[in-house]
Amino acid sequence: MKVAIDAMGGDFAPDEIVRGAVDAAREYGCQIILVGDEEKITPLLDKAGDWRAMGISVHHASQVIEMTDHPGAAIRKKKDASVVVATRLVKQGQCDVVISAGSTGAAVAAAHFGLGRISGIERPTIATPMPNLAGTTILLDSGANTDAKPKHLLQSAVMGSIYAEYVLGIKKPRVGLLNIGEEETKGNDQVLATYPLLQHAKTLNFIGNVEGRDIPKGGVDVVVCDGFVGNIVLKFGEGLAGAILQLVKDAIKNAGFLAKTASLLVLPALRGLKKKLDYAEYGGAPLLGVDGGFIICHGSSKAKAIKNAVRVAKEFAEKKVVEHIRENIAKEGNIANED
Amino acid sequence: MKVAIDAMGGDFAPDEIVRGAVDAAREYGCQIILVGDEEKITPLLDKAGDWRAMGISVHHASQVIEMTDHPGAAIRKKKDASVVVATRLVKQGQCDVVISAGSTGAAVAAAHFGLGRISGIERPTIATPMPNLAGTTILLDSGANTDAKPKHLLQSAVMGSIYAEYVLGIKKPRVGLLNIGEEETKGNDQVLATYPLLQHAKTLNFIGNVEGRDIPKGGVDVVVCDGFVGNIVLKFGEGLAGAILQLVKDAIKNAGFLAKTASLLVLPALRGLKKKLDYAEYGGAPLLGVDGGFIICHGSSKAKAIKNAVRVAKEFAEKKVVEHIRENIAKEGNIANED
Repeated sequence: MKVAIDAMGGDFAPDEIVRGAVDAAREYGCQIILVGDEEKITPLLDKAGDWRAMGISVHHASQVIEMTDHPGAAIRKKKDASVVVATRLVKQGQCDVVISAGSTGAAVAAAHFGLGRISGIERPTIATPMPNLAGTTILLDSGANTDAKPKHLLQSAVMGSIYAEYVLGIKKPRVGLLNIGEEETKGNDQVLATYPLLQHAKTLNFIGNVEGRDIPKGGVDVVVCDGFVGNIVLKFGEGLAGAILQLVKDAIKNAGFLAKTASLLVLPALRGLKKKLDYAEYGGAPLLGVDGGFIICHGSSKAKAIKNAVRVAKEFAEKKVVEHIRENIAKEGNIANED
Repeated sequence: MKVAIDAMGGDFAPDEIVRGAVDAAREYGCQIILVGDEEKITPLLDKAGDWRAMGISVHHASQVIEMTDHPGAAIRKKKDASVVVATRLVKQGQCDVVISAGSTGAAVAAAHFGLGRISGIERPTIATPMPNLAGTTILLDSGANTDAKPKHLLQSAVMGSIYAEYVLGIKKPRVGLLNIGEEETKGNDQVLATYPLLQHAKTLNFIGNVEGRDIPKGGVDVVVCDGFVGNIVLKFGEGLAGAILQLVKDAIKNAGFLAKTASLLVLPALRGLKKKLDYAEYGGAPLLGVDGGFIICHGSSKAKAIKNAVRVAKEFAEKKVVEHIRENIAKEGNIANED
């Protein structure tokens, strides 16, 4: 298994990206190609020891896409940008999966144009794993496709279900449509038109509408929504979890001397909890629907997130997610192409 | 100040509604008219002592709108439904504000048709206060108007800003547009078209786009979004906060004997935290844009929430929110009626 990592993408690139790649090579034993500015990457690798023996190599790319660049235009103009070159390595069969923590818009554009789409899929979708009280929920789309049409949400649902089944190992994943009420008659025009498409899909275990509160409860395995809604939910959840843990810490600190002493015993438990809620543990979110592996990482990814993204990439390739999506989309037939 | 309370609306009606009304009459000393089935309400009141002396009266209404009723149709057919009658009392000037914990759809319909809209407002909007690390954020719309047009979001923004200023006491409230990125060029068609309207509004302190994570941080006072998005965010937040507090408790419980002992000291602090995150403390969310006071409560409201809703109703009337909205919408001129 070979992974191409965009070494120049992300708030902490290239340092943390390179560190994560080294950690992943050590832990997972897969081959890693770091793509980016050779002169910056090589010295960082040299510090880590005999990186060539670990299965790491460097592929030079002279350009970088900045957060301020317009994604579509940047992909077309900067043909030697690290994320574009890394994607090309997968297209040419030299690698199995790309990982990037750079601009999400640029990553989606690079994947879309560089790898093409799986037949029957019109829009790629980002599938983000979220922790819940019982395990993990896949939220998709979490930001690739805003203003999705109902047929795009159906395509998302089929892809998310495949991912939950083959990567998370959930038999017949429960697929829910994110809505403002459980009743079939609730919602905006977009979800009202999507409901019957999901209901009649051949490859889905559709459980109907779900509400925001069902996500943390864990009553649903795959939550389908527009990329605009998904991205807002995801970032709100991230912020809220952080704020609540801060409040818990403050509450303990301010509870007087005895509670303070007690907190020394309780804090390790809280750290365990923080780990459970830490998105870095999940590593990255696959971009589903493009014809190849592509894992998108949080812009603020540090070494740990990158290492875990390599684990996600490995599972993605080994479980043959692209092939399974292709099969199931074909089974859905014309429904995937409805207007 | 007189409040009409829909005694038959909500999961715990009429018992908890009546209990909340009694508590509110005692604490806030305002006059309360309980609207609903006299035969059910009076015995509950009798248990509380001399309720007439507390300023409580009962106004009989023979019908109830069920959660399964279609809101619009139910409002037209059930002319003697408790929420319809309570709304009529406000329209006729016998009361200042209505409170209902019944079906939100029915409440919005009853208010819309019973009170009419403030001139220049096309769609009412639910303004929900959410706790953040620094204080309170007003989220609107949290479910009255899905598929909002940009001009509706502008109207929401003006109303939310008034509410934050006069009821929360925030000078020049910071108004943000909920989006998937801070850049002006980010978002779906709806928010892209809304941005310039907010930017050019005369009565707003518009700070641009905000992301989901900005809500719990408290970097914004009024968050403007479509009712579909707002409702999902609100319920997701409710569920996530509950789930995290559960995880904190479990983590403490499972941390061994010493931590368990310690937790006895820490739990009071956690309870304080829970109170901060408890939506019942906020009591209710005003429906803004209708020509009169209308406070919508959570369906699962118990006595405490109803009591606090009376506090919200009192502030709403005393701070003359409707009048201030009317003035500011007039100042915005034609912009409020753009297509």
